[in-house]
Amino acid sequence: MSNSFGRIFKLTSFGESHGKAIGGVIDGMPANISLDFDAIQNALDKRRPGQSKLTTQRNEADIVQFLSGIFEGKTTGTPIGFLIENTNERSSDYTHIKNTYRPSHADFTYDKKYGIRDYRGGGRASARTTASIVVAGALAQQIIPNINFTAYVNAVGDIKLDKDYQQVDFNQIDQNPVRCPDAETAKLFINKIEETQKKGDSIGGQITCVIQNVPIGLGEPVFDKLQARLAYAMLNIPAVKGFEYGSGFKGSAMSGSKHNDIFNANGSTQSNNSGGVQGGISNGMDIYFTLAFKPTATILQKQQSIDNQGNIIKLEGKGRHDACVVPRAVPIVEALAAMVMADFVLLQKTNKIL
Amino acid sequence: MSNSFGRIFKLTSFGESHGKAIGGVIDGMPANISLDFDAIQNALDKRRPGQSKLTTQRNEADIVQFLSGIFEGKTTGTPIGFLIENTNERSSDYTHIKNTYRPSHADFTYDKKYGIRDYRGGGRASARTTASIVVAGALAQQIIPNINFTAYVNAVGDIKLDKDYQQVDFNQIDQNPVRCPDAETAKLFINKIEETQKKGDSIGGQITCVIQNVPIGLGEPVFDKLQARLAYAMLNIPAVKGFEYGSGFKGSAMSGSKHNDIFNANGSTQSNNSGGVQGGISNGMDIYFTLAFKPTATILQKQQSIDNQGNIIKLEGKGRHDACVVPRAVPIVEALAAMVMADFVLLQKTNKIL
Amino acid sequence: MSNSFGRIFKLTSFGESHGKAIGGVIDGMPANISLDFDAIQNALDKRRPGQSKLTTQRNEADIVQFLSGIFEGKTTGTPIGFLIENTNERSSDYTHIKNTYRPSHADFTYDKKYGIRDYRGGGRASARTTASIVVAGALAQQIIPNINFTAYVNAVGDIKLDKDYQQVDFNQIDQNPVRCPDAETAKLFINKIEETQKKGDSIGGQITCVIQNVPIGLGEPVFDKLQARLAYAMLNIPAVKGFEYGSGFKGSAMSGSKHNDIFNANGSTQSNNSGGVQGGISNGMDIYFTLAFKPTATILQKQQSIDNQGNIIKLEGKGRHDACVVPRAVPIVEALAAMVMADFVLLQKTNKIL
Amino acid sequence: MSNSFGRIFKLTSFGESHGKAIGGVIDGMPANISLDFDAIQNALDKRRPGQSKLTTQRNEADIVQFLSGIFEGKTTGTPIGFLIENTNERSSDYTHIKNTYRPSHADFTYDKKYGIRDYRGGGRASARTTASIVVAGALAQQIIPNINFTAYVNAVGDIKLDKDYQQVDFNQIDQNPVRCPDAETAKLFINKIEETQKKGDSIGGQITCVIQNVPIGLGEPVFDKLQARLAYAMLNIPAVKGFEYGSGFKGSAMSGSKHNDIFNANGSTQSNNSGGVQGGISNGMDIYFTLAFKPTATILQKQQSIDNQGNIIKLEGKGRHDACVVPRAVPIVEALAAMVMADFVLLQKTNKIL
Repeated sequence: MSNSFGRIFKLTSFGESHGKAIGGVIDGMPANISLDFDAIQNALDKRRPGQSKLTTQRNEADIVQFLSGIFEGKTTGTPIGFLIENTNERSSDYTHIKNTYRPSHADFTYDKKYGIRDYRGGGRASARTTASIVVAGALAQQIIPNINFTAYVNAVGDIKLDKDYQQVDFNQIDQNPVRCPDAETAKLFINKIEETQKKGDSIGGQITCVIQNVPIGLGEPVFDKLQARLAYAMLNIPAVKGFEYGSGFKGSAMSGSKHNDIFNANGSTQSNNSGGVQGGISNGMDIYFTLAFKPTATILQKQQSIDNQGNIIKLEGKGRHDACVVPRAVPIVEALAAMVMADFVLLQKTNKIL
Repeated sequence: MSNSFGRIFKLTSFGESHGKAIGGVIDGMPANISLDFDAIQNALDKRRPGQSKLTTQRNEADIVQFLSGIFEGKTTGTPIGFLIENTNERSSDYTHIKNTYRPSHADFTYDKKYGIRDYRGGGRASARTTASIVVAGALAQQIIPNINFTAYVNAVGDIKLDKDYQQVDFNQIDQNPVRCPDAETAKLFINKIEETQKKGDSIGGQITCVIQNVPIGLGEPVFDKLQARLAYAMLNIPAVKGFEYGSGFKGSAMSGSKHNDIFNANGSTQSNNSGGVQGGISNGMDIYFTLAFKPTATILQKQQSIDNQGNIIKLEGKGRHDACVVPRAVPIVEALAAMVMADFVLLQKTNKIL
Repeated sequence: MSNSFGRIFKLTSFGESHGKAIGGVIDGMPANISLDFDAIQNALDKRRPGQSKLTTQRNEADIVQFLSGIFEGKTTGTPIGFLIENTNERSSDYTHIKNTYRPSHADFTYDKKYGIRDYRGGGRASARTTASIVVAGALAQQIIPNINFTAYVNAVGDIKLDKDYQQVDFNQIDQNPVRCPDAETAKLFINKIEETQKKGDSIGGQITCVIQNVPIGLGEPVFDKLQARLAYAMLNIPAVKGFEYGSGFKGSAMSGSKHNDIFNANGSTQSNNSGGVQGGISNGMDIYFTLAFKPTATILQKQQSIDNQGNIIKLEGKGRHDACVVPRAVPIVEALAAMVMADFVLLQKTNKIL
Repeated sequence: MSNSFGRIFKLTSFGESHGKAIGGVIDGMPANISLDFDAIQNALDKRRPGQSKLTTQRNEADIVQFLSGIFEGKTTGTPIGFLIENTNERSSDYTHIKNTYRPSHADFTYDKKYGIRDYRGGGRASARTTASIVVAGALAQQIIPNINFTAYVNAVGDIKLDKDYQQVDFNQIDQNPVRCPDAETAKLFINKIEETQKKGDSIGGQITCVIQNVPIGLGEPVFDKLQARLAYAMLNIPAVKGFEYGSGFKGSAMSGSKHNDIFNANGSTQSNNSGGVQGGISNGMDIYFTLAFKPTATILQKQQSIDNQGNIIKLEGKGRHDACVVPRAVPIVEALAAMVMADFVLLQKTNKIL
């Protein structure tokens, strides 16, 4: 029951890193939408491994197959089943961890929770499962084509993009492998990642996401406030350690007289510390939020760990891994944001009877 | 459908600031628990207004009345209906805002979303509704008496408590009106708030919450990870702008070789950057997280705003308000944390058949 | 989690027969509806005890108090909390059953399930809790004023009304205490109940419900088909043992060539064996269904039973009971039908994007 | 959101009659269960077409492929994705109905609801989708191996098996193609179906299901009573028109003194009019219920109908169809019953804390 997300537009996801396939079922997709399949595949391509020398060399084609819910290119209002085959799994890469728990991975907790563990590539805990989110997000986006979702990397390690989202050019984001909208900073990010890679280490980072052209009135207090659903969605992304929206943590140091967003006559506001949300409901201004990602747990250095008998052992990462996963998380963030917003748009239709 | 929280242990909440009563229904409370009613009222007393000169002078007794689900002091397994009467509402304080939208309040968004607005005291958007959360949290805590929840204020404005939770004495928290576990810092917090009060301004802050003695195995991937449910819960608290757990935003600047938590032979870890959660599942270490609160929107200064006809007006806050709500939010944070954890404990019973 | 019903329009109910109050929270009520409070109270009055000498003499006024979600007579889109005080409870009537299990009551099963039992008047298992359903149903009806709900008694014991719903005059239903639309049959029903009453016995019966002026397209395959939600709702009414819609059990004896409903050019059908539903979706024809009610378990005759130690005992019903509950169940059936249909009307808004 | 069933053990289903595949995701399957794959395939084989000359000649192998959630033959606690390819679809059989609405089918309602319709073989409304239910039910059964589920055909048209379930030999059920536990009656059923077949007509029938060895205490009042969940599940089966449990419709004609089930000292009852459920909770006695099935809408006779422009037309059924679907529905009834009961068993674990 915890592998579904959404109330009207709902993804139910399945699959492990090294099973036959990953996939899901999308329920609540409105009928009669002509799908743009290229847009879906493009989103998947942004997430998939092997895009550049900065990312894991596991080279999955990640072709999505739709099994139902679509007829002659249009949605039928019935559930959309889909799958992505795992074509390039190399389970043998993982036999060495069969009985061991890697530090800061989910090996220990899965084993203790379920009493059984699919150790191949992290099993269900693998970030590979986020491909299903990207598919669902690309469909969600097509329900609400007028709302724009833009995510980008704004920090790698301790190097931070020193500009607000209003000061950068979103068109630059896809011009570099680190998905940074500022070319100079992108170079610093790349250097940082390459350096890290050489050491066999990993590094964290941050992503900012901006949602624009949002209708006023989305969000469902008191327990499904817009920001709460966003945080809920985002904290399910592997490696995310923090979420802030609008003024965020900085806002906690401010006084009300500075923080309050003064209205213009048309209802827009002069500042946007609220981050586009007041009382849990969108006010029509841009929604923006930032996520903290921890460094990947897998490193290609020798570390102490334990096996499932409690023996102290030495482990060394093998397999194919990203030194910095943050750039590849950009389409996942956009996808979840689109899922959240599409759900709110559909729910909002039920708030009035006319 | 968005006024319920929880999957097995579930609160459905109702009520506005100036209606007859606020309250809720708690479903999924296990049967046969002898309730400690003093503990429930104590939690409410920690949240209620009028506790010190630092907080709003609206003086609600906040006495909870239980209407069902309890027989001879024990839970019966049936839903627990409860209410708290609004005894001290002064609606007339609010007639001046009937047709106006206060900056950074929910007035504008509620009006636009629903086409109607109960303007008295913020209506449903009032933080008064969190009293129902505190009741539910106090019951949740009694399902899991061995798990400890401790929240405290760790920043007021730009003044930050410069110690980790391991370095402070939790017994100090209730020794000062700002709920800071460090007496020296508490004084600075109090000064800051008093200063702010004098200016008719407001100020933000931060709360840290620590959950201790957590069983291994709680949390439900992939869409109900432990940290995701915590973030979901917390971002529904009015004024919360950010959530981070474990290493949080700082962790995003770290390398994997520093960030990884090395296991001890018994499965505990030497560091705890994971914040007690790996792969969305508790690992038995302390869970800790920090929340950013924006400054209260109501200030006793003249501000520009608009009315519902789009005319520019001048507004000046009236009514009874806190210059800093953060200390009063401490029991709310503990309550939601307990609700989340009790729910996971109950859900975990269904993960295996033996 | 099992005390809520509905997906968009949702009632969460609480309360026992002899607690302080029963009530509930209605979430998902659309905003800006001017409520007709008399209609709500009228529905409650139809259900309440003490209406005639045929029904229980427990004389509850059953006045509903609304606590939230309504401002100046209109719904605000926020949850509607309500309660009905238990003013006439006589718990002492029940001390004799404290340690005993009455035959065909819920005493035994509640005690075994929860390990504790509020024995006063059946506790949560009492039909008194259906008053909350009647309130929610009366509100649901006001969301969909154009859809008509009419239920009536069509059998008492082995006496059956020998006419289809098209052959009777719905205006007659409230002209007699047994809610039968046929005056002659009503007399037979009354005689049957009086006879039963004299023997200290009880008797079952049937209710037919007709839903008219239904929009085409309501119902959500494949697991929330219209008939499935109706059956789900109705089988939760205490004493209901069976549900059939359209041709029902008789239809199982028919051939397809007789059973099929032939279309008219406008999409209506010549016969209506489908009962207004095809493939789980309303087709615009009348929806009609019939419910079987078992005889009340409480009888004023001596019966063998057991106590909670497994001793065989003799029990004799006391308290105030209906010899036939079926007439009082009519408003409950209408209420649940309205709840189901209002929910489908709201859900249907999400099926298309235009 | 309406293609999922269950609260803890939950099936989310997808697929149409003539899409690439049907399938689903099972969430909430407990971990560490060694699966009996033969039992799953056997259940599917009981449902699949082409089993005898009495059933449709569409000859699907109906081989289920599991894609996730199983590791080395055991469940891992993660979601189980599965699919069944549609290997034998002959869409061309259906081009003649592309623009027409077949009487008593879902063609008209789907088209009106969604504004689009996959006309091939009934699309999502096809009973083919019930294969996913059979898979989920076979897994559910393995969670609760001690509870026995037995369904059989007890009527075909107006021929009824004149024995209670206690009087027949369940071992006979699979000895004849009509799944009747009485050899003599089975012959009558077969004759009836063959006669019907010759006329190109169809015929309805009834199924009785018995659930034995049920633990006391399952069921969740007041809106998820055991009988309500069963009725909810069963009324989602295509063609089901009625549900009754225990004494059912006959019980509505009885007096309480006859209907009440008198306790034995050990808590069992002398009669079982309650059908194993009191107050919505299992009492340990056998649960039994009967379902009415209407005759299949597709007949091989000429019928009047309309096209989607409102023109009156003549239609004649083509394709491969059962004259009586009731025998093939037996494994579907058992599957849904197992899903309902497994869910209650898992939920019941959360009702107490010890």
